[in-house]
Amino acid sequence: MFKKTLVALAKSGAKAIPPVKLGYKNMLKDPSLKYKPFPAVKLPNRQWPDQRITKAPRWLSTDLRDGNQSLPDPMSVEQKKEYFHKLVEIGFKEIEVSFPSASQTDFDFTRYAVENAPEDVSIQCLVQSREHLIKRTVESLSGAKKATIHVYLATSDMFRDIVFNMSREEAVVKAVEATKLVRKLTKDDPAQQATEWTYQFSPETFSDTSPEFAVEICEAVKAAWEPTAENPIIFNLPATVEMATPNNYADQIEYFSTHISEREKVCISTHAHNDRGCGVAASELGIMAGADRVEGCLFGNGERTGNVDLVTVALNMYTQGVNPELDFSDLNSVVEVVERCNKIPISQRAPYGGDLVVCAFSGSHQDAIKKGFALQEKRRAGGDQEWKIPYLPLDPKDIGRDYEAVIRVNSQSGKGGAAWVILRSLGLDLPRNLQIEFSTVVQTKADSLGRELKSQEITDLFKETYNHSGSIGKVTLLDYEVTKLDKERRALTGQVQINGNIYDIQGTGNGPISSLVDAMSNLFNLRFSVANYTEHALGSGSSTQAASFIHLMYRREVDNENAYKWGVGVSEDVGEASTKAILSVINTIVQSGDVSLPEPASKASASA
Amino acid sequence: MFKKTLVALAKSGAKAIPPVKLGYKNMLKDPSLKYKPFPAVKLPNRQWPDQRITKAPRWLSTDLRDGNQSLPDPMSVEQKKEYFHKLVEIGFKEIEVSFPSASQTDFDFTRYAVENAPEDVSIQCLVQSREHLIKRTVESLSGAKKATIHVYLATSDMFRDIVFNMSREEAVVKAVEATKLVRKLTKDDPAQQATEWTYQFSPETFSDTSPEFAVEICEAVKAAWEPTAENPIIFNLPATVEMATPNNYADQIEYFSTHISEREKVCISTHAHNDRGCGVAASELGIMAGADRVEGCLFGNGERTGNVDLVTVALNMYTQGVNPELDFSDLNSVVEVVERCNKIPISQRAPYGGDLVVCAFSGSHQDAIKKGFALQEKRRAGGDQEWKIPYLPLDPKDIGRDYEAVIRVNSQSGKGGAAWVILRSLGLDLPRNLQIEFSTVVQTKADSLGRELKSQEITDLFKETYNHSGSIGKVTLLDYEVTKLDKERRALTGQVQINGNIYDIQGTGNGPISSLVDAMSNLFNLRFSVANYTEHALGSGSSTQAASFIHLMYRREVDNENAYKWGVGVSEDVGEASTKAILSVINTIVQSGDVSLPEPASKASASA
Repeated sequence: MFKKTLVALAKSGAKAIPPVKLGYKNMLKDPSLKYKPFPAVKLPNRQWPDQRITKAPRWLSTDLRDGNQSLPDPMSVEQKKEYFHKLVEIGFKEIEVSFPSASQTDFDFTRYAVENAPEDVSIQCLVQSREHLIKRTVESLSGAKKATIHVYLATSDMFRDIVFNMSREEAVVKAVEATKLVRKLTKDDPAQQATEWTYQFSPETFSDTSPEFAVEICEAVKAAWEPTAENPIIFNLPATVEMATPNNYADQIEYFSTHISEREKVCISTHAHNDRGCGVAASELGIMAGADRVEGCLFGNGERTGNVDLVTVALNMYTQGVNPELDFSDLNSVVEVVERCNKIPISQRAPYGGDLVVCAFSGSHQDAIKKGFALQEKRRAGGDQEWKIPYLPLDPKDIGRDYEAVIRVNSQSGKGGAAWVILRSLGLDLPRNLQIEFSTVVQTKADSLGRELKSQEITDLFKETYNHSGSIGKVTLLDYEVTKLDKERRALTGQVQINGNIYDIQGTGNGPISSLVDAMSNLFNLRFSVANYTEHALGSGSSTQAASFIHLMYRREVDNENAYKWGVGVSEDVGEASTKAILSVINTIVQSGDVSLPEPASKASASA
Repeated sequence: MFKKTLVALAKSGAKAIPPVKLGYKNMLKDPSLKYKPFPAVKLPNRQWPDQRITKAPRWLSTDLRDGNQSLPDPMSVEQKKEYFHKLVEIGFKEIEVSFPSASQTDFDFTRYAVENAPEDVSIQCLVQSREHLIKRTVESLSGAKKATIHVYLATSDMFRDIVFNMSREEAVVKAVEATKLVRKLTKDDPAQQATEWTYQFSPETFSDTSPEFAVEICEAVKAAWEPTAENPIIFNLPATVEMATPNNYADQIEYFSTHISEREKVCISTHAHNDRGCGVAASELGIMAGADRVEGCLFGNGERTGNVDLVTVALNMYTQGVNPELDFSDLNSVVEVVERCNKIPISQRAPYGGDLVVCAFSGSHQDAIKKGFALQEKRRAGGDQEWKIPYLPLDPKDIGRDYEAVIRVNSQSGKGGAAWVILRSLGLDLPRNLQIEFSTVVQTKADSLGRELKSQEITDLFKETYNHSGSIGKVTLLDYEVTKLDKERRALTGQVQINGNIYDIQGTGNGPISSLVDAMSNLFNLRFSVANYTEHALGSGSSTQAASFIHLMYRREVDNENAYKWGVGVSEDVGEASTKAILSVINTIVQSGDVSLPEPASKASASA
């Protein structure tokens, strides 16, 4: 019985919510059913494509507000403090720290920032256009040297209709009311004169607002605030969601910049997000279109795909010869703080900050970089300081990277990569043929491991393969002497130790190297001939050393075919470097089993 | 003595390499010493800023070549095969698979691709302008249905000077020679007529080459190849290193497109890298400037910062109502294959592919999204299928995401976030005051854990806090009956069990809910009053349920202050839903210790 009653009640009173139908059709077949192209701005006399970025904009970091709010695991108070000081250290003069009316934690952190900011840093806080929230925000900033109150209001049709159900006229009234209230509570309040108050207004989302209406509401706000040229009002023009190719945003900025009155009392600020992967481009084209200020986060943190990455925008200017007035020279420490506080790793391929951004794996890239460095040294010696290296748009040192990290070697790398590693680690400039041979050794190793080889592994592989400085092996040169036979001929005599036996050796040639090789041929009773010999100096000043490379040809005993091996020797004495190279290659040949050791009987004479 | 000799030799013969001076100065102080701005292209009649992207370009994936070559740990052969098939599945009709003249592995994989490609997929291979390498490349492609030979040659001053030491004239001669050789070995060879051969030429690096010379060398190449409108020659115009704002690249493309002759026999291809974070913008503005084809990699793999991300370029078109002719509807499986094969994680904030790209953490974003969904349902019911949700530029379902993943809750989230989770998980549309109360519960929990709360945790927290459906507690309603006293008054009688004791209850009111609340007041000997009562339907058709929310006010025994608690009930029967809600809140109040249980003595009557 009671059931009937209650069913009747349900029929009469229950508010029915239609079930949400979220069925998925593969809309790729015809996306035009669902998505509409972004409407273009009419801009007949467009100027920005001919402009260049020639000076740094004002920067605003919103890492602690827009960035922090969107972290799966937001920063602790201690992390926010550390991050704040890092931003100051980098050189940010405007830092949005919080939404102080939203929580006690944000309020308290605002107090911390106010009390710890250098005098020239303005603390910025976000607030909605509501009286009690604005009051609380002003309270949080009280006593700051410089402070910016940032009010936002829905101006786009979509946001006004869907979110606030507010007409354009109502939006203008509300924006003016909020502005007047902020004015009354800040710059017009005799008790607040110790602070330099700046006002920032964001028509939200600007990029989706008709340009005419954006100008209209901002004119009303400007009239209510009455800014000066010395302390202009900030109109922050957010692309809260990136909705079109970045030239559209530039068109919107240029429209705004050329239509707002009293332009000298207005600071136009970009606030780009990255939903279409063009946040950097939008900010840059925005500056070209007239923006004076850029908001964003380090490495592009923020809701969804993030805000624009300020590191990239700043360092992009840097490589165009423009001082960005932010110091990212110790970029590694910035990466460290940001990754630890945000708990989101920076992509390995993120511009400037990523692990791989100054790395070259391809052989042809590596060759070009190597040549570029060599030529740049020459140019620098001639006074030309311009940075001009193929595949490296900026000097890795400028972002705290070592040159050692530039060239990395995997199975796809050519000869140049491994040769670069050996040049950087051992100082050896390998002859071209040795580069080619060694690259095969490296490729085989990388292929068999299925991964990149580390520099140390490549260095070890080189030392092992070429018996670097001949230190390993059965054949030791005890002593030798070279005498001059005639103008062109030299004779070498000496002693070699093999497996505890000592052999006298003797050979002739047109110099000590050929004489020693001849003596080795006599000892082993086969013909070693020099296919290639190269030397170079290593280091400079009192620590100069010499490096020698020798390529020997001989016939293998097993099949009587020609074989080749390289040897490498390094010494402070260039002559010793060459003898070391010869001993190095002889030992490599002996160890390969290609030739037999001389019989103890065959020795010329044995000394105890 | 020998030392002297060898020192003399060193003096005469050793090649001295100057030590490389790599001292780091903080160049930020004056970057103009080191970097020069990029020279602009003269383009007086610029058209591209007024153009729109209205159709899909031709796409070329170079994941297996440019992408793979730059991986710290390149793909295994098995991974390359899997990746190749994924590219085909997505819909790529042009795939650059290798540099077959560089290694046997690349040659063998090319054969695999040739033998396994669908008939409409062209296999592309890269090769330098050298005869023996071109021959080997043609060999690797032999028998393909469609094949593209991609020859590149240094044309920029920097590359010609630093890397190849070659004049412009020599470059033109070399390019023409290579083209004629490819022609002889492919489309002019009677033995190669089973294959449709396409020729691609890349002036390297185009973006750093004078536009006039780029056109000049391409004219010579085109004359040597003699393309047709049916099978145009591809001029791939690489920004191998991104060196300027993306509008410069568009200017260069437009210059090329408007100056090359026989435009209908030419396919202009972009090949953008991402050193300045603008690869997507460069490709998009490039298309607007006349490009017909886009080269890149999935999620932007490639040397340094990577090639342009083709997923972003394609899905950017999609959200503008343009069918990209690539199918990324199962984006999760693409992410899975790419991450596994490349061994480089896709950034959590990467457009479309990143974990966080359709997530909203901020309370105001969450509220707006919730309102947007509700309004969209209404619009859809009226036949309007356009996607229009604040903060969500595309339907998460279109990239294989659940709506559940959209709104995520951390300590920075407002009431909307948790309410959304409850709506999605339990189907409950919480009344506004309950949203506010529950959001405090959630914030406290998130703050104490210092991390994001997962949906399941929020759901559990809700059920626990509001004793969902009253299932937990000491007070059980055994049976009850409602009778009509007069037109407006109802009487309720029933039985309640508490701790094994059974109590008769009785109450009156203007309906069953107020009668039951009155009966409970009588039982506990204090006054419960209904501060809020809401119901809604849940689901549709035969599985429809009802949800009831009740907010009771009462006085706490300990301090005689007013207190409030919420209860929630769900049932197929709407009446039962409301009684469950009442039992839910009564049990919560009892468990809180705010009121005492009725004495067994106080029961109206006891049945065994």
